[in-house]
Amino acid sequence: MNEFEFIENIKKKYDLGLIGDDCAVLPQNAENDLLITSDMLIEDIDFRLEWTSAELLGHKSLAVSLSDIAAMGGEPKWALLSVGIPETLWNAKFLDRFYEGWHELAAVHGVTLAGGDVSRTSAKLVIDSTVGGEVPTGTAITRSGARVGDSIYVTGPLGGAAAGLRLLEAGVRRGVDDGDERAPFLMKQLKPKPQLVVGADIRRRSLATAMIDISDGLSADLSHICRSSGVGALISANDLPFESEVMNSAGSIDAMLHLVLNGGEDFELLFTGSQERILEALGSEVFRIGEITENVGTVEFNRDGKVETLSPGGYRHF
Amino acid sequence: MNEFEFIENIKKKYDLGLIGDDCAVLPQNAENDLLITSDMLIEDIDFRLEWTSAELLGHKSLAVSLSDIAAMGGEPKWALLSVGIPETLWNAKFLDRFYEGWHELAAVHGVTLAGGDVSRTSAKLVIDSTVGGEVPTGTAITRSGARVGDSIYVTGPLGGAAAGLRLLEAGVRRGVDDGDERAPFLMKQLKPKPQLVVGADIRRRSLATAMIDISDGLSADLSHICRSSGVGALISANDLPFESEVMNSAGSIDAMLHLVLNGGEDFELLFTGSQERILEALGSEVFRIGEITENVGTVEFNRDGKVETLSPGGYRHF
Repeated sequence: MNEFEFIENIKKKYDLGLIGDDCAVLPQNAENDLLITSDMLIEDIDFRLEWTSAELLGHKSLAVSLSDIAAMGGEPKWALLSVGIPETLWNAKFLDRFYEGWHELAAVHGVTLAGGDVSRTSAKLVIDSTVGGEVPTGTAITRSGARVGDSIYVTGPLGGAAAGLRLLEAGVRRGVDDGDERAPFLMKQLKPKPQLVVGADIRRRSLATAMIDISDGLSADLSHICRSSGVGALISANDLPFESEVMNSAGSIDAMLHLVLNGGEDFELLFTGSQERILEALGSEVFRIGEITENVGTVEFNRDGKVETLSPGGYRHF
Repeated sequence: MNEFEFIENIKKKYDLGLIGDDCAVLPQNAENDLLITSDMLIEDIDFRLEWTSAELLGHKSLAVSLSDIAAMGGEPKWALLSVGIPETLWNAKFLDRFYEGWHELAAVHGVTLAGGDVSRTSAKLVIDSTVGGEVPTGTAITRSGARVGDSIYVTGPLGGAAAGLRLLEAGVRRGVDDGDERAPFLMKQLKPKPQLVVGADIRRRSLATAMIDISDGLSADLSHICRSSGVGALISANDLPFESEVMNSAGSIDAMLHLVLNGGEDFELLFTGSQERILEALGSEVFRIGEITENVGTVEFNRDGKVETLSPGGYRHF
């Protein structure tokens, strides 16, 4: 049993209708629904202290939850931040710097810290990030509305965060300590940008039938949409957007496609809808990568005319 | 610097007005305010796996957050549950049993699981529990309304959870695996009961000027009320409620008073208000332990006519 199966099991067993999207959607008032989401980041599973800085980690802790709000087309409002911190880091003022990085991103998006917890741990650093947001009542974009014939889009190039992770694994640290943005792959991995502006734009203009953020990887996240919507998908290798440096870093087309399809953590948005309407509204701002099919639960991949079925190869915790 | 000081520092530095009570209070709609709270529980800091069961830990993870809702006079509505779990526990179906204990308490109070996260960890088990609740607009009971001359009350006997912790430290495990409620101290430590009914009753009848739950310990939590309200407090040893078994377990009056004053985790409510009105409304359901004074920030303790100043000796993470 992996984590997705565990969540599916308790969802069925206890009839948990709010579980299974980027955020839960709850009634708030006459104008807006409340969006809520939590993400836990654990040292040596989700990050390594030697590969990042306190400030970058603070940024990323908030960014991953903001990305969930973006994926519903929402606007973030408040956040809770819980940190379990080893005593060695406490003494090094780690928490002050961590919170500075968190706050810098929060201020950009008007997010207020509303609470949380700070606790000592005898083990690894652990962070739980909760964000609350809003969408006008009934307009949250879920994973379950994709229809056969819809086109499939992503909001930006993929594979960069995974390429950055490879560089970190290889010992590259350029820009980590001084925030040098010339290290774009490292920053794609360490300082991801939540796509709140385009997410809210897509929602306001009713362009998407379904949306998700790419956190587990394109193949896994597209598979989530297909399962929730009861449809299939066909994507094309030639249409996948990536930056040329990802190709250079990967070294081969196969390795590059692996990063783009399965890398995860790009935090771009993946959405479905009418090709005509999206082309008219967003033009070349977004990238069409395929279309929704009737092959329920199946993600197919067309590479130079040869079609294979993808197993969701995104990052899994188990 | 301890955790309270860190939180005070960032609260001042970043002007975080929502921080510093049991829950944050946010506007929700014309009828109700939204309450939100988070608590992080870390293995070997907040609990030990050999002293509890998966089901009891699930119960307690939710109970501590429900207690924060109770302390504002609120009603809980939804929850987020994030768990970082070592692979060894995953294989033992720990998470299924943990969630059963969580759900049993959630069902009693009509709380819906709205989301969360499940992640592997290479280290200790960690749980972050978030609960959202409601109070009628403007009626949340904060820590900051205590006035000189108010009486101070607790909703139940104190020291039981700390006495239970001592038994666990001494190797007693009676009732842990079979949930035998004849082990009352152990269950006070392992299966605390959030005081939601009396908390909401106090709020509906406008009986409290300030309220907090006793999680850190009476002396520390009363000190939180004094600091937030800009007042002092005088409590009397002879008025402190405790069960006779706490005295037996402690072995001396000094040791017993230490458990009652500093033990923590009783999750009773501590509140202030008019003696006349509270006596009339609640009678002997609650225990008057002292009164609010003008000695700002000072908690005084009257033991047989000798008055000393208490340092907040509750449990601190650092």
